[in-house]
Amino acid sequence: MSGFVEAHSAEVLKAAGRIKPYVRRTPTLTTDLDPALRLKAECFQVTGSFKVRGAFNAVLSLMARDPHPIGVIAVSSGNHAQAVALAARTVGIPALILIPEDANPAKVAATRALGAEVIQQGITFANREQRLREVMAERGFTLVHPFDDWDVIHGQGTAAAEMLADEPGIEVIAAPVGGGGLLSGSAIAAKSSRPSMTVIGVEPVVADDAYQSSKAGTIRSLPAAPNTIADGVRTTAIGARTFEVMFANALVDEIVTVTEEEIATAVRVAWTRLHIALEPTGALPLAAYVAGKLPSDRPTGLILSGGNANLQTVAKLLGTP
Amino acid sequence: MSGFVEAHSAEVLKAAGRIKPYVRRTPTLTTDLDPALRLKAECFQVTGSFKVRGAFNAVLSLMARDPHPIGVIAVSSGNHAQAVALAARTVGIPALILIPEDANPAKVAATRALGAEVIQQGITFANREQRLREVMAERGFTLVHPFDDWDVIHGQGTAAAEMLADEPGIEVIAAPVGGGGLLSGSAIAAKSSRPSMTVIGVEPVVADDAYQSSKAGTIRSLPAAPNTIADGVRTTAIGARTFEVMFANALVDEIVTVTEEEIATAVRVAWTRLHIALEPTGALPLAAYVAGKLPSDRPTGLILSGGNANLQTVAKLLGTP
Repeated sequence: MSGFVEAHSAEVLKAAGRIKPYVRRTPTLTTDLDPALRLKAECFQVTGSFKVRGAFNAVLSLMARDPHPIGVIAVSSGNHAQAVALAARTVGIPALILIPEDANPAKVAATRALGAEVIQQGITFANREQRLREVMAERGFTLVHPFDDWDVIHGQGTAAAEMLADEPGIEVIAAPVGGGGLLSGSAIAAKSSRPSMTVIGVEPVVADDAYQSSKAGTIRSLPAAPNTIADGVRTTAIGARTFEVMFANALVDEIVTVTEEEIATAVRVAWTRLHIALEPTGALPLAAYVAGKLPSDRPTGLILSGGNANLQTVAKLLGTP
Repeated sequence: MSGFVEAHSAEVLKAAGRIKPYVRRTPTLTTDLDPALRLKAECFQVTGSFKVRGAFNAVLSLMARDPHPIGVIAVSSGNHAQAVALAARTVGIPALILIPEDANPAKVAATRALGAEVIQQGITFANREQRLREVMAERGFTLVHPFDDWDVIHGQGTAAAEMLADEPGIEVIAAPVGGGGLLSGSAIAAKSSRPSMTVIGVEPVVADDAYQSSKAGTIRSLPAAPNTIADGVRTTAIGARTFEVMFANALVDEIVTVTEEEIATAVRVAWTRLHIALEPTGALPLAAYVAGKLPSDRPTGLILSGGNANLQTVAKLLGTP
């Protein structure tokens, strides 16, 4: 094992201990689809997605460094928002979440219900990073980045670590890749558990910046937020830290891309054959599996990252045979 | 513990050993809804419902009595059909399933895909019992009754037994009741585990024959198959054996009824907040919970019996806020 993997996997282990009282040990499921398949169903995680793992690890690590922080701040229109709000409320510090004006009102309400202050006025997908810096400067809150943060990466790695503890025979592991936090954490856990493990990231064809970055050997950005039903991976570029884990240290073996139709098919398979209500982003690894884009005939673990689907989207998907 | 409970719970234990190689130990889930709630998610069971537990126990018990049976026969348009087909194929004997002509073609195809012979011609919901007796006489196959059979009842009891092994603190257990096989098995497992356990059956208001039977102290039948979205509990009457367990021996404490709207709400809650894709029948205990019809503030386990939903039904439910 390389020193890099060794050092970071020790941090994943520490993260697991730190977040244990606050997150759920989700089940590793077997299915009727394929006896070689295992599913880490993070849709059953607290708040419905894996994001609480990284958010709790970041907030608890912050508290260890500074017992009286002013508060934490995040930009997100989705699962990360709820995760940071919950982690902050749990430790008793304020959370401020910037959410673009056109975000799903249900997700905004869920974030407010967890006690966070939400700023939407004047926030767009395009200007949100700049507005974030301004608000941080004004308020002095500490950023919890959705992926380009070691504490977040180590927290996200605990899902793969649990799956591999449950099923040590797994040889291939696949996870969605947006900014790369979940995939980086999973790769650290996987390579420390079994150096020969094949680690695969899955992203939409229309959001293939991780694929392009892997080929270029440097971070490549999309020109604009991609139009994909997998709305959890609309980030236009991976981060410096996730690039370092995934490609500079080569802990990720391959990035596989899937079409919108393949994602839709996977959501239908999940809901009808596996009986798991996934959001499209959470179904990305299953999309690669169903499309035959993962190595076959080897014990394979898929990290199904979340279940907070937009109901209209899913009702339409299910109504279309 | 009464001798009745003792004798039958010993059979549930034997059933668990017998069926173990063929069924899945489904997870007992915790949720964000309520820390006192536990869910036995039988939608993740082999074939998508608990029915394989009873079917395998019946078929394996039959093989132990008669190593060369001609075959097994069942009447079902749903989960029991697939369960019996799979159990028969697994042990290598023919299965013959009578399915009403107007059944969902997808379920017929799924049953045929499991190697069963399917007879649909001339079969209706009304005449199916009579046609069954005729075909049994012609072919000499052994009946696997969907609920009024001790082997089936004991097999179904293994789900509750697993949940109570996982979560010994549970004090209230709720399960759907149609013919009463699952509820009877659950009641045997529950009362043997904790004599003070409260055992509750849940059925649609429009299919309240178990409720009526519990009040009358004798089996009461519905005049016709009820029109409910919970299509797994359209049976018009419970059986002699399930009556004996549930009411003659008083192992069931209460039958709760839920409206069609309460069932629809529970399916939406399951799909959107729990991320479990349940069929309406599988959501019956959750419907009673969400409607506030179960005892509150006591550790409660719900047996969510299956996930094989009709897609059109569910797409419509999800599209309706």
